[in-house]
Amino acid sequence: MSLPFTAFSKDYLDEIKTSITKYVTKTPVLSNKIINSICGAEIFFKCENFQKSGSFKFRAATNAVLNLDSSQKKNGVITHSSGNFAQALSLASQAQNITAHIVMPKNAPEFKKRAVLQCNNNLVECQSTIIDREKISKKIQDKYDLTFIHPSNNLNVILGNSTVVSELLEDHTDLDYIICPIGGGGLISGSALACEAYSSSCEVIGAEPTNVNDAYRSLQSKQIEYNSTTDTLADGLRTNLGDINFPIILKYVNTIICIDEIEIINAMKLIYDKLDMLIEPSSAVAFAAVLKEKEKFKGKKIGVIISGGNVENNNLPF
Amino acid sequence: MSLPFTAFSKDYLDEIKTSITKYVTKTPVLSNKIINSICGAEIFFKCENFQKSGSFKFRAATNAVLNLDSSQKKNGVITHSSGNFAQALSLASQAQNITAHIVMPKNAPEFKKRAVLQCNNNLVECQSTIIDREKISKKIQDKYDLTFIHPSNNLNVILGNSTVVSELLEDHTDLDYIICPIGGGGLISGSALACEAYSSSCEVIGAEPTNVNDAYRSLQSKQIEYNSTTDTLADGLRTNLGDINFPIILKYVNTIICIDEIEIINAMKLIYDKLDMLIEPSSAVAFAAVLKEKEKFKGKKIGVIISGGNVENNNLPF
Repeated sequence: MSLPFTAFSKDYLDEIKTSITKYVTKTPVLSNKIINSICGAEIFFKCENFQKSGSFKFRAATNAVLNLDSSQKKNGVITHSSGNFAQALSLASQAQNITAHIVMPKNAPEFKKRAVLQCNNNLVECQSTIIDREKISKKIQDKYDLTFIHPSNNLNVILGNSTVVSELLEDHTDLDYIICPIGGGGLISGSALACEAYSSSCEVIGAEPTNVNDAYRSLQSKQIEYNSTTDTLADGLRTNLGDINFPIILKYVNTIICIDEIEIINAMKLIYDKLDMLIEPSSAVAFAAVLKEKEKFKGKKIGVIISGGNVENNNLPF
Repeated sequence: MSLPFTAFSKDYLDEIKTSITKYVTKTPVLSNKIINSICGAEIFFKCENFQKSGSFKFRAATNAVLNLDSSQKKNGVITHSSGNFAQALSLASQAQNITAHIVMPKNAPEFKKRAVLQCNNNLVECQSTIIDREKISKKIQDKYDLTFIHPSNNLNVILGNSTVVSELLEDHTDLDYIICPIGGGGLISGSALACEAYSSSCEVIGAEPTNVNDAYRSLQSKQIEYNSTTDTLADGLRTNLGDINFPIILKYVNTIICIDEIEIINAMKLIYDKLDMLIEPSSAVAFAAVLKEKEKFKGKKIGVIISGGNVENNNLPF
């Protein structure tokens, strides 16, 4: 695996940001005095939980569908996703009048299926194995000549994600660190590209559940490692790195902090108690990294990406 | 009661906004597709729950302390408040190195007392009657030669509050209505002044719990009416109109919508479910007005002021 590029210029990433700006929400950045005092650092939460479709994935999906050619747009798109990308691609495609087909595992949460169905009738259920997901997706893709859009391992998806950090660094130019959760690797690779283009001193750090720390191990071994379990509350982070985003991570990310399940719950609860916001466990992983490594982050200015807020409010882990 | 002014110019309100801008948070404006679809209107939530100290009152308190003369600053300030203004004045005074004394009723929520104590040692408890509040405040005020700042019936407080709507209308110039909760009347009178200065077509509408609808009745009788009970979940709206803000309301506000307790809870729950935000019952009253009068608001663009988020997360009414 080699990188087909070394970096993108600020101008190029600005163009991406401009092209999606009328479709996406410029999400707020929140701070809280008590949280800063607990952390001994200044935290700037970039709140993608308030993004359309409830997560940063709407940026990815929007950039991906805008970059289709006219025949691809006419035929439509397909993805398989158990969660946020399914909602995001449904909504982004609807906004562009493009047909989207979504393959979701039967055991995906009912409220996420409902969210997809609110803007999209083409929902097909599959078994929860990756083999069945891919098999069914391929079959539908071939039948209708659709373009497959991977939720994280796709360059337009990664570039769409980069706009989270482009926005954040535009308003907060002096951050020392930006912390991203890592699942499939799409958010952190987009963030790293933006950080490289927009800042000479800010460093992107990853946060990953210990139970599914394929990225942490991959960074050590310098090859893609795999998870043997999906046993984490952070359902958005169960997926594995891909061959497009891993080289970017390898080049730009030096540190990934592993987070235990109880630390995810504590971080989620602290945001609920102090900011009165309910965020999904995957989002809490990034904040948990600050709470875990207080010495490292002491006195620093830190952007923490709250990646999404799609959680069942009547089924909280605390 | 007569108004000592007919209106403030946009330039003057801009000056107020500029003078407090480095102390206050420019709060985000959130929208949600599902909520819009439920309401049949476009709702723009101005989220003062993310303001410093957790409510718009921080704007009021900041403007009030910035407008003290040097001897007043040296001696310090005092207020009596059961809630958000107590926290706001403590924090705003601390930021300006001004001593603040806070008189709070014994039965105020513990978490609000704790929030005051986090930045202020001068907390004095009193009985929950208005007579005892005022008696104890006066005694301390005289002893230390303090400036008394009323939480709502004070022109600098009202002008500080006006910045919520100045910000909202600057970013969303084409709103048809702005809906404010009414308690003491400080927020709606500030909002009405800003609306008058910034927009030629937008109308400010009040929302008030039916159980404490002194403002609704005052608007009808054209004199200040009083509440015989404080029996509402919306603890921030139990207070009465004052002689400084009532003339402003009388001049600029034509409509106040009365909201029942169950409607407050339903609105609070809908924001929790769809926006994953926990807001205080007083804030939910404004949104409840849209849900109650769907026909009136159909197809309109509506700013809804979420006035604060100070609620005990483990003691929700739903």
